[in-house]
This record gives sequence, structure tokens and C-alpha cells, in this order.
Amino acid sequence: MKALQERILKDGVALNETVLKVDSFLNHGVDAHLMYEIGTEFKKYFENHGVTKIFTIESSGIAPTVMTAMQMNLPMVTLKKQSSKILNGDVYQTTVHSFTKATDYELTLSKKYISQDDRILIIDDFLANGEAALGAIRLVEEAGAKVAGIGIVIEKSFQPGRKMLIEKGYEVYSLARVSKLDAGVIEFVQE
Amino acid sequence: MKALQERILKDGVALNETVLKVDSFLNHGVDAHLMYEIGTEFKKYFENHGVTKIFTIESSGIAPTVMTAMQMNLPMVTLKKQSSKILNGDVYQTTVHSFTKATDYELTLSKKYISQDDRILIIDDFLANGEAALGAIRLVEEAGAKVAGIGIVIEKSFQPGRKMLIEKGYEVYSLARVSKLDAGVIEFVQE
Repeated sequence: MKALQERILKDGVALNETVLKVDSFLNHGVDAHLMYEIGTEFKKYFENHGVTKIFTIESSGIAPTVMTAMQMNLPMVTLKKQSSKILNGDVYQTTVHSFTKATDYELTLSKKYISQDDRILIIDDFLANGEAALGAIRLVEEAGAKVAGIGIVIEKSFQPGRKMLIEKGYEVYSLARVSKLDAGVIEFVQE
Repeated sequence: MKALQERILKDGVALNETVLKVDSFLNHGVDAHLMYEIGTEFKKYFENHGVTKIFTIESSGIAPTVMTAMQMNLPMVTLKKQSSKILNGDVYQTTVHSFTKATDYELTLSKKYISQDDRILIIDDFLANGEAALGAIRLVEEAGAKVAGIGIVIEKSFQPGRKMLIEKGYEVYSLARVSKLDAGVIEFVQE
């Protein structure tokens, strides 16, 4: 997605070989019009994938996902990050490790919001090691539903997440694929 | 807002005298079209308030706020909930008590995203005791900026938040004002 790549080059800040800050338009500051355009791109790519619901992970995935859900005219569910296990039968839960924050959290989905007929599009802001996406996949599959695809705003292609998801058979569509980071350096995969 | 009141009556679940669950369309499940309509309502009310930026609090405020920011054509900032103090000079931080979760968190704003000329519209999903709104106000005013108004999706009018904010001189516009809750009972303020 050209507008997103240009925005990353203009306003993104590469701190070192792994950290790309996009605080000014995606994570802290949010550019609502860019979020709408991101939704348009995801719709264009996934509209013939038989998607029945869109899932995202709180909280930076919410803005692009609500714009996608509106344009695809589909229900959306925000998977919640809980700090502790919920000990009742009403939810699916799985432990996810966050490399960024060096902690674990319990990704949580109410059983009410999924059925085995669902085909779920998972959208998230970043794909690096793939831990969050894998957690979302586990919840979808535990419910007997199918993953229709994974939509990523910014992929760090030099980290293992994409390759691991592809090898497991999932379709990954990333709007910006970053091939290299370093202090002041941002490069994209040439496609 | 009639469509919102009807949705609360249809899909909201009052558990007791204080807890209203709106998981199915606002907090966990998200109805993107309803979020858009909420944005339209906030725009209609606040468009002549000289607003320069819209702030919300992660994470349930994000979906209605991004829809408002798009329609008002304004920048948006998501105030982050951190579990610990950030000890550098780049952020404004204030401690907020959450009655719902019985914990404190550090509401955080990068200094880059506010200036003293700003007039900030604060949008949040719920107003009960007003702790989160007051925290956001403290951050805005610490930066020397002005609060242009407070937009709330669902107000629990029987709790002290609204009255406290009004007494302090802030303008509060709530799309649904719940006057009474009890197991299976949801009533609205007659206006």
C-alpha cells in the first residue's frame, strides 16, 4: 500500500535493527483517514474470502479493524488482553508471550461471539514474531471455526512471524513489508 | 441518540444496580456501523466548538473516536494506560483509579501530540465516577491546552461523574443517559 509506505518513511522512526515507532499515526496518534484507506485495502484483498467476522487484538488493532469491518459490512470482535485466567466456561483463553513487553497475557474471546461456521479474518497492526496472531488462531480453531486470512498493517519481514504463519498454511496479507531497519534506516520488501 | 438507546435496550445486559454489559456491540463485539453513527452524532454536537484534536482512552474508546475523528477531519490521540510511571520528560502522566477493576493505572500522553493552542474534545465509552475523564482533563491542562468538551457514549447518570464534571465547568454531551439499572432493568433519563 503506497500511501502507507510513504507515511512510514515520512513519520516512522527506526530506533535500531528491530524497533519501528509509528506512534504518530497508528499507535498513539491515530490518522483516521489513513485507517479508512487501510480498511479499503483489506476489503479489496479479502472480500472474496468468505469472511464472516473480523477479529483484532486490543488495542492498536482496533482503529484499522473497525474501518475494515464497516466497509466489509461485517461484525467485529476485539480479543481482550487479560492479565489473569478467567475461570469459567464462557470464554476461550490462550496465553500469549509479548516479546515487546517481555510479559505474558491471556488473550480472551467470549464463546458467544464465534460459532463453528465462522470464517474469521484476523487483523493486527504489527507482525513480528507472530505470537499474537498465533494466539488469535488458537482461539478461532479451539471454537471449531476457520481462519479465512490474516491482515497485517506493518510486517517486519526480517522477523520469523510471516514465514511461520505461511508454513502453517495461513494466508498473510501485509500492507507494508519492512525488510530492514536500523537507526534512521527503513527499507521495504521489493514486490 | 435513539438508535443507541434502542440497541442498549435490545442487547445490553443489566447485571445489577451498577453494571451494564454492552459487550456485544461496544466493548468486545463491535458494531462498526453503529460506531460510525455515534461519530456522526458527536460531529453534529461538537462541530462548532473549535475542537483541534480528539483524545480518547484505550481501549474501548478507540472505535467510536476514530469514526468521530474521520468525520470531523481532526487528528486523534489514544491516551495509553501504562502500569508503571515512565521516568523521562517526554510524556505527561497522571494516576487514574479504576473502580471497575479496583486498580490504578498511569494515563500517558506524549508531549509531541499536544500544544497549548489545542482545544481538545475528550471521548470515552462510559462515564460513571468520572475518574478516567478527570485524568484526561489533567493531562490536557498540564499541557496548557483547553478542554473543548467531553463526549460520552453511555453515561450512568445515577453515578457522580457527570455532576462533578459539570460543576467543574466542563461541557458533557452523552449519547445515552442511563438513569436506573437493576437485574433486567434499564431506564433512561427523560429529556
